[in-house]
Amino acid sequence: MNILVVNCGSSSLKFQLINAETEDCIAKGLCERIGIEGSMISYTPAGGEKEKTVTPMNDHTEAIRLVLEALTNEKTGVVKSLDEIGAVGHRIVHGGEKFAEATIITDEVLKAIEECNELAPLHNPANLIGINACKKLMPNTPMVAVFDTAFHQTMPEEAYLYGLPYDYYRNYKIRRYGFHGTSHAYVSKRASEVLGEKYEDLKIIVCHLGNGASISAVKNGKCVDTTMGLTPLEGLIMGTRSGDIDPAIIEFIAHKENKSIDEIMNVLNKKSGVLGLSDNLSSDFRDIEDGYFAGQENAVRAMNVFVYRVIKYIGAYIAAMNGVDAICFTAGVGENGPLVRTLVCKNLEYMGITLDEELNQKRGLDLVITTPESKTKVLVIPTNEELMIAKQTAQLVK
Amino acid sequence: MNILVVNCGSSSLKFQLINAETEDCIAKGLCERIGIEGSMISYTPAGGEKEKTVTPMNDHTEAIRLVLEALTNEKTGVVKSLDEIGAVGHRIVHGGEKFAEATIITDEVLKAIEECNELAPLHNPANLIGINACKKLMPNTPMVAVFDTAFHQTMPEEAYLYGLPYDYYRNYKIRRYGFHGTSHAYVSKRASEVLGEKYEDLKIIVCHLGNGASISAVKNGKCVDTTMGLTPLEGLIMGTRSGDIDPAIIEFIAHKENKSIDEIMNVLNKKSGVLGLSDNLSSDFRDIEDGYFAGQENAVRAMNVFVYRVIKYIGAYIAAMNGVDAICFTAGVGENGPLVRTLVCKNLEYMGITLDEELNQKRGLDLVITTPESKTKVLVIPTNEELMIAKQTAQLVK
Repeated sequence: MNILVVNCGSSSLKFQLINAETEDCIAKGLCERIGIEGSMISYTPAGGEKEKTVTPMNDHTEAIRLVLEALTNEKTGVVKSLDEIGAVGHRIVHGGEKFAEATIITDEVLKAIEECNELAPLHNPANLIGINACKKLMPNTPMVAVFDTAFHQTMPEEAYLYGLPYDYYRNYKIRRYGFHGTSHAYVSKRASEVLGEKYEDLKIIVCHLGNGASISAVKNGKCVDTTMGLTPLEGLIMGTRSGDIDPAIIEFIAHKENKSIDEIMNVLNKKSGVLGLSDNLSSDFRDIEDGYFAGQENAVRAMNVFVYRVIKYIGAYIAAMNGVDAICFTAGVGENGPLVRTLVCKNLEYMGITLDEELNQKRGLDLVITTPESKTKVLVIPTNEELMIAKQTAQLVK
Repeated sequence: MNILVVNCGSSSLKFQLINAETEDCIAKGLCERIGIEGSMISYTPAGGEKEKTVTPMNDHTEAIRLVLEALTNEKTGVVKSLDEIGAVGHRIVHGGEKFAEATIITDEVLKAIEECNELAPLHNPANLIGINACKKLMPNTPMVAVFDTAFHQTMPEEAYLYGLPYDYYRNYKIRRYGFHGTSHAYVSKRASEVLGEKYEDLKIIVCHLGNGASISAVKNGKCVDTTMGLTPLEGLIMGTRSGDIDPAIIEFIAHKENKSIDEIMNVLNKKSGVLGLSDNLSSDFRDIEDGYFAGQENAVRAMNVFVYRVIKYIGAYIAAMNGVDAICFTAGVGENGPLVRTLVCKNLEYMGITLDEELNQKRGLDLVITTPESKTKVLVIPTNEELMIAKQTAQLVK
């Protein structure tokens, strides 16, 4: 079954058409600047050329219409008609406490997602717009919602509660939710397969290190903790996000620079992380890595602070699980950054970890990169959130 | 030499007169509600009765005058004249990056402390008032400043920098400072003595768990990380302080309850922690412990969240130091809370830790509480910040 995977932002829409059985990506693309001057769609059929078209898109419905036209286009299309699309899988950022797994979208589900809007005011409303646009144009095609938060719903109370007045949880549902759940679920499960052990018997730490970054602790097949919190701002240092800070810093900056909370949140989300630490060198870890090797002080600083926090969270989750069997690296930096893996694992010798530096240099494979004697295993597992969404969608629709 | 140790708050003043050689506390007391209606001084000479006197104190100078009168009082005093007080040691909360150790107070030092005021606007100005009051009444007695932040000044950049625009550090010195430094220094050093090993060869984690709580990692005799940050709000869950939260929660509450940053900071500092988590049962860990044993849901929740975060930070610091030799518990909860130690150490079996539950029940001694086979040692070391301040003061004055 072909599954259209849709990931809607407020002015963007990413899509992939995936054959859920063969796991092949048949076509993919991106609509940008939806509702803004200069809207553009890029589209790449598998094995074909990428084509970019600047064309007006007033809203997400028009964007979806263009996507469907591209997919069914006589020359460069990949399917003959929309009938060849069996279902649509939507990536939904926040499922609150309502959704612990993917679900077929009904009117009730739509309403429940809407109720999570205030937990992710930038993301969920855009996700909903995407669902509604698809429903309009493909009224008879089943739709599935796959939540970024779902996998983390198994966390115990001591991991998801903050040290705040309990009424904030009771009344507003302020708690740790975590994100990248689809990736953490896929990578931890895959690691158990690569190791040839039962998922339910393992203690696994997954380091999803991309421009957004999070770590999770997966014990006996269930997530028991993760670094992102109520929002994706908490935890690790990311491309432009600060991760953890002393909460009092917000007050300090507010007084110092006479800034509003919203202005400061903008700095914490968009001007911080390795971008901020590197004195605006770059939010792209490839640039930070290049600078690190060139000995640039600002890049070395950003890399060291980033790596150190990864080390601390890995250590924290080893203690949270009272031990660990495998540590996995995934996503852009996690998969392609041998430097980060080397720097991180250097501090984990106490867990009996020895990297095989030759294996650590390889790319694009599910791979154990520790020596055979290494007591704790370290793996690189390329993540594929779209494929996971396609597979979960196909499974629910069947 | 007798040292008067002074710890000034905005409307309070704690004092102890300590013989730095014998390490005996000769007298101690507290002035409360200074400058407020109902001012009161309590005074206890060693071996004597505590006496409380309600008497007006318009400012800290009047409070110090009453303290000196009590100490030299014919009947209940402990010294004949002020000449028997060799020096005054002042506890100063924030020394910024200027002070990595205790120092004799000169006009220059006073100015430098004043420059740190904005880093600790609630504490440093009060500390300065205390110094000035003492100078007025004992103009010829040497004064020493002992900083809560000093011991942590050895932290490396990756531990003290936040993932923020680097200009915040460059221009405003926003960074992790850490507090309770006098206690962390004393306890870690003492642990090496109890273990009979060289301080410079050990990796030690100190858990200072009181109403305010912080953990530090001390590697080869130097602090390499600590949980409190720019302010004492960050890190562990405390009596009324939240510790770490997703910084975006501040924005969320601000919008939800139409609150200002200052109002929210007040909640995070005074209505959160175990007080908030326990639904206002208590900020006192003894009550939380009682409730835990009685199976009260709110107390169990507060205790579990508190303990879990201690476990995570211990794990983080083990990774930060690539191993650990000894974990020390100190301060109110750390010294007197066998339950907390039991719950924490249960999750540290992976480090080869086995508590001796009989030893764990003992109180008031420097004690190793793990079994002889335990690979990593766990110790209880009663802290004594006043004595440390007295000793450092005497040493500098000599």
